[in-house]
Amino acid sequence: MLADLKLPEDLKKLTFAELEVLAKEIREFLIETISTHGGHLAPNLGVVELTIALHKVFNSPVDKIIWDVGHQSYVHKILTGRLEKFNTLRQRGGLSGFPKPEESPHDVFATGHSSTSISVGLGLAIARELRGEHHKVISVIGDGSLTGGLAFEALNNAGHLKTNLIVVLNDNEMSIAPNVGALSTHLSRARINPTLYKMKEDFEQFIQKIPKVGETTFRYLDKIKDSLKYLVIPGILFEELGFTYVGPVDGHNLRQLTQTLVEATRHQGPILIHVLTKKGKGYRPAEDNPCKYHGVPKFEVSTGQLQITPGPPTYTEVFGATLTEAAAADQRIVAITAAMTQGTGLKGFAQTYPERFFDVGIAEGHAVTLAGGLARAGLKPVVAIYSTFLQRAFDQIIHDVCLQGLPVIFAVDRAGVVGEDGPTHHGVFDLAYLRMMPGLTIMVPRDENELRQMFLLALQMDKPVAIRYPRGHGTGRKLSTVEAFNLGEAEVLRTGEHAAILALGPLVQRAEEAADRLQAAGIHSAVINPRFVKPLDKKTILYWARRVPHLITVEDHVLTGGFSSAVLELLADEGIRKVQISRLGYPDHFIETGTIPELHSVYDLTAEGIYRSVTGRPLTLVGGDKWK
Amino acid sequence: MLADLKLPEDLKKLTFAELEVLAKEIREFLIETISTHGGHLAPNLGVVELTIALHKVFNSPVDKIIWDVGHQSYVHKILTGRLEKFNTLRQRGGLSGFPKPEESPHDVFATGHSSTSISVGLGLAIARELRGEHHKVISVIGDGSLTGGLAFEALNNAGHLKTNLIVVLNDNEMSIAPNVGALSTHLSRARINPTLYKMKEDFEQFIQKIPKVGETTFRYLDKIKDSLKYLVIPGILFEELGFTYVGPVDGHNLRQLTQTLVEATRHQGPILIHVLTKKGKGYRPAEDNPCKYHGVPKFEVSTGQLQITPGPPTYTEVFGATLTEAAAADQRIVAITAAMTQGTGLKGFAQTYPERFFDVGIAEGHAVTLAGGLARAGLKPVVAIYSTFLQRAFDQIIHDVCLQGLPVIFAVDRAGVVGEDGPTHHGVFDLAYLRMMPGLTIMVPRDENELRQMFLLALQMDKPVAIRYPRGHGTGRKLSTVEAFNLGEAEVLRTGEHAAILALGPLVQRAEEAADRLQAAGIHSAVINPRFVKPLDKKTILYWARRVPHLITVEDHVLTGGFSSAVLELLADEGIRKVQISRLGYPDHFIETGTIPELHSVYDLTAEGIYRSVTGRPLTLVGGDKWK
Repeated sequence: MLADLKLPEDLKKLTFAELEVLAKEIREFLIETISTHGGHLAPNLGVVELTIALHKVFNSPVDKIIWDVGHQSYVHKILTGRLEKFNTLRQRGGLSGFPKPEESPHDVFATGHSSTSISVGLGLAIARELRGEHHKVISVIGDGSLTGGLAFEALNNAGHLKTNLIVVLNDNEMSIAPNVGALSTHLSRARINPTLYKMKEDFEQFIQKIPKVGETTFRYLDKIKDSLKYLVIPGILFEELGFTYVGPVDGHNLRQLTQTLVEATRHQGPILIHVLTKKGKGYRPAEDNPCKYHGVPKFEVSTGQLQITPGPPTYTEVFGATLTEAAAADQRIVAITAAMTQGTGLKGFAQTYPERFFDVGIAEGHAVTLAGGLARAGLKPVVAIYSTFLQRAFDQIIHDVCLQGLPVIFAVDRAGVVGEDGPTHHGVFDLAYLRMMPGLTIMVPRDENELRQMFLLALQMDKPVAIRYPRGHGTGRKLSTVEAFNLGEAEVLRTGEHAAILALGPLVQRAEEAADRLQAAGIHSAVINPRFVKPLDKKTILYWARRVPHLITVEDHVLTGGFSSAVLELLADEGIRKVQISRLGYPDHFIETGTIPELHSVYDLTAEGIYRSVTGRPLTLVGGDKWK
Repeated sequence: MLADLKLPEDLKKLTFAELEVLAKEIREFLIETISTHGGHLAPNLGVVELTIALHKVFNSPVDKIIWDVGHQSYVHKILTGRLEKFNTLRQRGGLSGFPKPEESPHDVFATGHSSTSISVGLGLAIARELRGEHHKVISVIGDGSLTGGLAFEALNNAGHLKTNLIVVLNDNEMSIAPNVGALSTHLSRARINPTLYKMKEDFEQFIQKIPKVGETTFRYLDKIKDSLKYLVIPGILFEELGFTYVGPVDGHNLRQLTQTLVEATRHQGPILIHVLTKKGKGYRPAEDNPCKYHGVPKFEVSTGQLQITPGPPTYTEVFGATLTEAAAADQRIVAITAAMTQGTGLKGFAQTYPERFFDVGIAEGHAVTLAGGLARAGLKPVVAIYSTFLQRAFDQIIHDVCLQGLPVIFAVDRAGVVGEDGPTHHGVFDLAYLRMMPGLTIMVPRDENELRQMFLLALQMDKPVAIRYPRGHGTGRKLSTVEAFNLGEAEVLRTGEHAAILALGPLVQRAEEAADRLQAAGIHSAVINPRFVKPLDKKTILYWARRVPHLITVEDHVLTGGFSSAVLELLADEGIRKVQISRLGYPDHFIETGTIPELHSVYDLTAEGIYRSVTGRPLTLVGGDKWK
């Protein structure tokens, strides 16, 4: 049926029975497609009925549907004319895994980071009023995203302005990991008992205690409030913020969903519809283990077996193991994640040291300021956040950590391009946004062993430190403690008089490969692993800048304000002008979706790219080797 | 009495009557001192009794008091041994206007930005538990700061963890401007009726409708909830977030405050004490106009007359006037502030176009994402935020504006050093944190007329634009429309063959003065007003870089990643190596408190500094002139 419908228009003609069939077909299609390409499985399986209901009731793109975070927009894409292109999902030049306005008018706003949808929806709704238009605006937000302060700021503003706005709370009791926080407890209460929780036990008692008007006092209130508390309407928190709360609604019941949404369209003012969904719905392995099947590589449909690329431990794993190991020797070490325990490699630490582990929910700003407080009190907090999400805590790193020189360690995971998640998720700005922070040390390991060393070094420093490392497997290098180095000490991997290549992080391997080939072509190039973006190893860099005619910087980062700029600043301030500088990195536009090797290749962050940069000409292949 | 006490210890010995006298003395001292030096008047007058009560009940610095935002910590400073130094407040080398750990062990954490205190307090409280210590942790937060998403993230986390933590909500019904938002309404309800609001009217009706257990349905709930809503405990929002709510308490009643704080110390788990204070309390002009007397210059105590430095319109005023004027011709222009209507010059716009004006509260992230939504719907949002506070919206500028190239104009006020507010408030990072954002245009006007032109140009562009301009008076240059220029076009103010000075913003005036003196010394220097940090005027800069032996960049910004780095990147990429580069700007540490001229002088952002940079030697005075 799916392929024959003109969507989303035809949805409106279908009966509920037909819609049920459609939902089934969509689930099968999702499982099939994601099993062959990878992608966000469980979140999308959870919103099949919700998405159908939204497109049945509302008239997209006239009505505006905003998907918070956006990784749950696959069904929306399928229902809005992108079925045929769906097998290009998350590939270079293909469909984005997130809403993307350039892709379809049905994708109202680009969303990849969390908690933006209410702000965006409010903006669209205000504009509608000012322009005298009449469409509906619907923000679909998960319960995890709701813990982000941005969502609260938007609720607070929307509840005050009273603009018509429909917020659909997609409550699956978890974001990527199971949710934490008081808000989650609040939602649970509504889930557990949609009428009046504990009513039976407490109500009589309450009635008996009702005072005559005027006699009520605080003391009295103190006594009754525990019973009264559970008498309040589910969702009182939203009501108190100025929203009308409706729910909870069964998110897999198309009839109930549709009816509730229709009623919502008649409502004046902001309304929040609390929809209960099951993450992974309809695919048993994903229902049973929604975290594991949140975002998946290819997998075997019948067994649910994920096709894990074999390889050495990832940087994330080595970080996590090193942290857990170090924590045994130093009681002061605590770790913080913002709803990414698994993704940031903290699961082992969390299990071993639960009392020293803090998952604050999707709340990067709080994660960092909390770390500032912990550090002030003498602990050694380690904050593990992806590079792209740490952008949310930019001010907190400056104001609540660096300003006071507090010893917080930032484990900046997923630095550099991240592959299929694309432009909203690439971690290519961190060196630029961290580098200007006074007192911050920035380290970039060239392999997992160096990551380990750097982390151990950071623990010995009594200062803020950021260590940035990429997504994916390490090099397989043996983890040892022998190759310790000092703060601000670069590593000269080979010497040469024609050029010096300063390659950051794992790209230093590409530089070594390039140097081999250059050698074969008679060009002798030094290869330097800077290790530190801040402080730079001035002595080493200046030595080579004075010695060779050509210096090449290579970084998995934008060329604006990053490592190369640090080198340029150093050379300018030291008056070194003779050396020619070539800079490899990302140009000044958002980097597209693609696998990491693809993107590295496009932007010359390869042995060949480095070779060309040194010689100014295409690589002369020696012995017919193929370059990666 | 004040001068004779050993503080804070002696507070504990004083009777309530004596404490009242002390409060009076402190008020007189505050008014006297601030009237001669300037500072935050109204907020501090409002917390005299609260601060006394805190120090009477708690044992600082063993117990930890964290002052959110921190500009209301004057009384705290007076009560913790800094009375004698108080006349150095907010001066270079003197006491900070904010809590500063380097200054006193009683200043637990540096706070200048809003909404950090609960996160910090939670960090300290968690650390206390892990270390087996037993002191109290008290976060004092204003109702304005509570609208920041960071505070919500912290409440959500603290309410979940159940760690002992005392949050004192200092509710004066305003942050800097009167508060907005649904949360404020929630607090008002508690203020209006501390027992059960609307109880009289609604209670009977409610009782009559009480159903037999089991009959309750959603339909029923829908009907009763309007009456039930007002029956809930004041502060139910905090209760729902896992806090015990106590209040409201009269913030000027020392006995009631003390008693409540003592009770709070016996409480297990997080507790929020809602304290009502009057901003400006005890000084009539400030009570009547707390916004005006929030932060003041010197003033005449008897009349309240503020000593406004006479001068041409400020950059802020010219921005506001230009915006209001442009809005008459273009209905699509809307303006957003984050609780800084007056400070960002939007008061006139707000009065003229109230329906197009949005004060979102202290919620910079939401301000920017809201603007993204407004722009997506075809409007032209102007977001006016101080440079230092825009740091809070760093990710939102990237993800919700630049990623989609949305036409949002950022009016980045208070860029550069801001003077007396010091390191937490200097706007010296913005070029570095904005420059790497793809698709963003960054303009820096050299005077108020150019600010006007830039704003009008930005309105014509269909792209994100940031305009950064400083605190304080313009140059008095006539506002005209004749000197229009194009995107990316620098201005060559004078030519010369010995050096070229690229000076950003108002510093170009210093460059011209320096050029005059250089001329007198036989050195002919070109002076260039770059106007655009992004895109750079490549043609002009490259022309001069090729023509002169020495190029000097001058910026009211850190030297890491700012304008000079943009120039270095350009020159490196164009292979220009002959020219010597000197860079004037701020070094890599947090810039201290001081007046703007003082700081400019310390860091060579003066005609003399530029002269020395060009000549490599101290200025040779001609005719005995004194240099500023």
